[in-house]
Amino acid sequence: MEINGVEIEDTFAEGFPIKVARVTITAITEHWAMEAAREATGFGTSVIMCPAEAGIERILSVEETPDGRPGVDVLICNMGYKNLENSLLSRIGQCILTAPTTAAFNGMPKAEKQFAIGKKLEYFGDGYQKGAECDDRKLCALPIMSGEFLVEESFGAVDGIAGGNFYIQGENQTSALTAAEVAVDAIKRVQGTITPFPGGIVASGSKVGSRYKFLKASTNEKVCPTLKKEGVCTLPEEINAGYEIVINGVSREAIEEAMRVGIRAACTVPGVLRISAGNFDGKLGPHLFNLHEILG
Amino acid sequence: MEINGVEIEDTFAEGFPIKVARVTITAITEHWAMEAAREATGFGTSVIMCPAEAGIERILSVEETPDGRPGVDVLICNMGYKNLENSLLSRIGQCILTAPTTAAFNGMPKAEKQFAIGKKLEYFGDGYQKGAECDDRKLCALPIMSGEFLVEESFGAVDGIAGGNFYIQGENQTSALTAAEVAVDAIKRVQGTITPFPGGIVASGSKVGSRYKFLKASTNEKVCPTLKKEGVCTLPEEINAGYEIVINGVSREAIEEAMRVGIRAACTVPGVLRISAGNFDGKLGPHLFNLHEILG
Amino acid sequence: MEINGVEIEDTFAEGFPIKVARVTITAITEHWAMEAAREATGFGTSVIMCPAEAGIERILSVEETPDGRPGVDVLICNMGYKNLENSLLSRIGQCILTAPTTAAFNGMPKAEKQFAIGKKLEYFGDGYQKGAECDDRKLCALPIMSGEFLVEESFGAVDGIAGGNFYIQGENQTSALTAAEVAVDAIKRVQGTITPFPGGIVASGSKVGSRYKFLKASTNEKVCPTLKKEGVCTLPEEINAGYEIVINGVSREAIEEAMRVGIRAACTVPGVLRISAGNFDGKLGPHLFNLHEILG
Amino acid sequence: MEINGVEIEDTFAEGFPIKVARVTITAITEHWAMEAAREATGFGTSVIMCPAEAGIERILSVEETPDGRPGVDVLICNMGYKNLENSLLSRIGQCILTAPTTAAFNGMPKAEKQFAIGKKLEYFGDGYQKGAECDDRKLCALPIMSGEFLVEESFGAVDGIAGGNFYIQGENQTSALTAAEVAVDAIKRVQGTITPFPGGIVASGSKVGSRYKFLKASTNEKVCPTLKKEGVCTLPEEINAGYEIVINGVSREAIEEAMRVGIRAACTVPGVLRISAGNFDGKLGPHLFNLHEILG
Repeated sequence: MEINGVEIEDTFAEGFPIKVARVTITAITEHWAMEAAREATGFGTSVIMCPAEAGIERILSVEETPDGRPGVDVLICNMGYKNLENSLLSRIGQCILTAPTTAAFNGMPKAEKQFAIGKKLEYFGDGYQKGAECDDRKLCALPIMSGEFLVEESFGAVDGIAGGNFYIQGENQTSALTAAEVAVDAIKRVQGTITPFPGGIVASGSKVGSRYKFLKASTNEKVCPTLKKEGVCTLPEEINAGYEIVINGVSREAIEEAMRVGIRAACTVPGVLRISAGNFDGKLGPHLFNLHEILG
Repeated sequence: MEINGVEIEDTFAEGFPIKVARVTITAITEHWAMEAAREATGFGTSVIMCPAEAGIERILSVEETPDGRPGVDVLICNMGYKNLENSLLSRIGQCILTAPTTAAFNGMPKAEKQFAIGKKLEYFGDGYQKGAECDDRKLCALPIMSGEFLVEESFGAVDGIAGGNFYIQGENQTSALTAAEVAVDAIKRVQGTITPFPGGIVASGSKVGSRYKFLKASTNEKVCPTLKKEGVCTLPEEINAGYEIVINGVSREAIEEAMRVGIRAACTVPGVLRISAGNFDGKLGPHLFNLHEILG
Repeated sequence: MEINGVEIEDTFAEGFPIKVARVTITAITEHWAMEAAREATGFGTSVIMCPAEAGIERILSVEETPDGRPGVDVLICNMGYKNLENSLLSRIGQCILTAPTTAAFNGMPKAEKQFAIGKKLEYFGDGYQKGAECDDRKLCALPIMSGEFLVEESFGAVDGIAGGNFYIQGENQTSALTAAEVAVDAIKRVQGTITPFPGGIVASGSKVGSRYKFLKASTNEKVCPTLKKEGVCTLPEEINAGYEIVINGVSREAIEEAMRVGIRAACTVPGVLRISAGNFDGKLGPHLFNLHEILG
Repeated sequence: MEINGVEIEDTFAEGFPIKVARVTITAITEHWAMEAAREATGFGTSVIMCPAEAGIERILSVEETPDGRPGVDVLICNMGYKNLENSLLSRIGQCILTAPTTAAFNGMPKAEKQFAIGKKLEYFGDGYQKGAECDDRKLCALPIMSGEFLVEESFGAVDGIAGGNFYIQGENQTSALTAAEVAVDAIKRVQGTITPFPGGIVASGSKVGSRYKFLKASTNEKVCPTLKKEGVCTLPEEINAGYEIVINGVSREAIEEAMRVGIRAACTVPGVLRISAGNFDGKLGPHLFNLHEILG
């Protein structure tokens, strides 16, 4: 299979189940909503050593937010609901409450699973907190130096999928990297997904496990071009660099759509030679995404 | 005391000791160094509930970095060396190693305290890691999908100060916020300091302790303008909003310089009425910064 | 009439007819399409002394562009077709042809009026130019240092409207300016419109004519708050600053929608007191936009 | 000669004399100074068909500007003083006066040649303009909707040089483009210079003249890789794309420094194979910049 002359390998991505919450951040301007979103989703690439996987889902117009202000939706993901509750408490409490002019709304008000985040954060008001309402939502209003911080009482979460992925392999580093940037820009428009790694890109795609027992993940040597001489790397001669795009999403459909638009976008960049994907014999998880089926 | 017609209150900021490490991130372009830096310093506002306090110190020219590529210096801060070592391992391993085209260098090679970060991260190479050198520094080279990731064997840290601060109080929210933005932009030029909160600004300045025993910090009600009616807020009538700038630094001198340029910059914005600072009867820490002395 | 507590004055904006062309710029990444778009639309605020009025209409996804690459639509406006043709030639030739990796497509292929822009620019190829096709469009391919520049043979233009506008008046400069930023961000989502002034905002709203015969436009002294003492400024006491948003569009409907979302967005910002608009007894033009009707 | 394994061709750049003025733009924040600067320097790549060559020279700290606010220096260049005066009048009057919160200061107060720009623009005040002073400079104060616009009475200009240049040639488009970005970022730090093309980069480097008599410049076919088959392009087989960096500056020394740091920076990017430069047998101008001498 080829797109724009780029080979699409007959392979599949392997993902795993994760819990996903959405926080709608509003602020006086889009700029300040985005600053809060960046801080709240930072240090959030992989649950291997980060306290959560997190990213910016999309920018909201003033017509789309509960309070009619500019906004940004972020997704926060953890392996279990207990960890996810902790992530919501600490990331909203430390990165959104503290950010100028923000409010934090429940981005999944209809989800079955709901956490009483606002009801816990409100103690920061030290007795001066009050109830409030906006757009039929129950909020807590905390007095702060610049006015009041509004946070919804509950935040919902759903079963999602982490680790949707594809590899972009090119004739050199800059062609693969440029294509990765184009892919991430395209995926930004797909609701329900994030690309949690730095700038949306993984430079050091890993395999499950390692020769060192204390390591859960290690470099995927078969796709490391500097190991061609040793015969360890099995990449064809003309491929000299690759990047991985990892996608978390609220549903299988969202991830498939992100993979579809991301791969198509990557294939527009000169020097891209092949699209592949990462799978690990089921050691990572049960969610499989076949490239040819998704792009067919 | 007045600057540009703005009252400088006769008060002081109260800070506390913290351990500080510097990581020099280089990449193929300034853009990608910055993307890595943002991810690596995110979720890093306050050690109350964040795993570290972190921020971007400054952008480096190609002449200033060990490998001659564009770069960014970040500071990472924790209450003790053990926590700081963990922060370095996880933030370099998850946010810099994974970022496209980056390398990570020791930003404090002459510090007495050094952590063997590279020597631990190199196991990710799964046996294919090698030693390397650059600019007389000992590095580990890990094969990855896009080439090699270079990370220095050791990263140094020093005793620094957290919690340097000042308050910007204005006639309304937008004047105080604009002044806070101007102050943060000015402080970006002061080497040895970071402003770790979202966009460099704290909207919800806190006091030490709370009426709830389980809370270490709570809203500083005396400076919360919505509590004026209750008589709880002691701000003068004309002040209707405030923001706090919190500064961490590698030395007392660096924080003083940051406070000086930040306060002067804030006082250029129309609608700013007063500069104050946060102190807590010594409950927070021993480092005091008197506004009049610093600006005198 | 009030929105969110902000008075909407019972007045109207006065606009004038203008010719409008759309250029679709594509590039290897959204970043480079945007760089070309900024250069091509710069020095383009008012035809009083600029060679055109120009601005960025919207960012296009990879699915929306003729060549499947990231793109940006820009609008270029002049008082007559002759001037507009010159603007297209010089702005495409100097700012898009010269920009890295770009192509330039006709953004109004169905317009009755078409200019042979590509057919004139192709002489830059110095005999090495060729015909090409993409998405059923006729293109010229010019060999350049980095490959080929593709430009469509024809570019279309329509009768549009310039000078759609509203005033945002606030208690101080920062509140009015922040609201102007929010309004411009909201208008960015309205297809068929641009806000051609710097950052989308006019700081120095003018009236038609002047006491000096050589000047076509001069400051609108009635809304200049520093002239309150002289009795020249007729603003109420509590209004201390204002900004104007000027909107050009391809149709009356597009401008009305931009005014609607822009005004609503501006009214979410604390400190905004009144929305007004600029009109000049018909001296500027025949297109009138009544605020109450648009918002009703 | 080689830098980092990249061949530096034994050739030289050819530039030509131009008149250069500097405008110091200040604003309430760096963000708004930059917005004004972008608009004021847009549509300013080449005097062949642009009304000026213009660009952002550097960002100024609050300590460096006449009014103590954030600022940006821009350079505006024309072939003669008459055209330059027109450019200053129209670009300051239409792009800085109209931008929110800005002031415009003379960036070359000691130059022999001075234009009475402020004294002409002040008529926009329609009789309400006044004199003012700041930092020992004579200013005009014009009442506008958001307060007062301050503009210095005079703006100075000097004899400068345009067309300083070098070519970055790489194994493919993305490697050459990435290197061009790195070079431009490095040159941003060299005071006294600008790179006036889109994003600082020229994609369509030209030669002087054409087979068509009406064209002053046309594509430089010898360095166009798609013309290799015809034998017209003389590039070696392994070079498949190139970009040109064009530098204007206030002095020969400034341009040499920009070329030095720009070339060195470009040579850090993988896939860059050769640095060359554009010269035209003296048809363009008398200023020659030998690569080996500059880098020696």
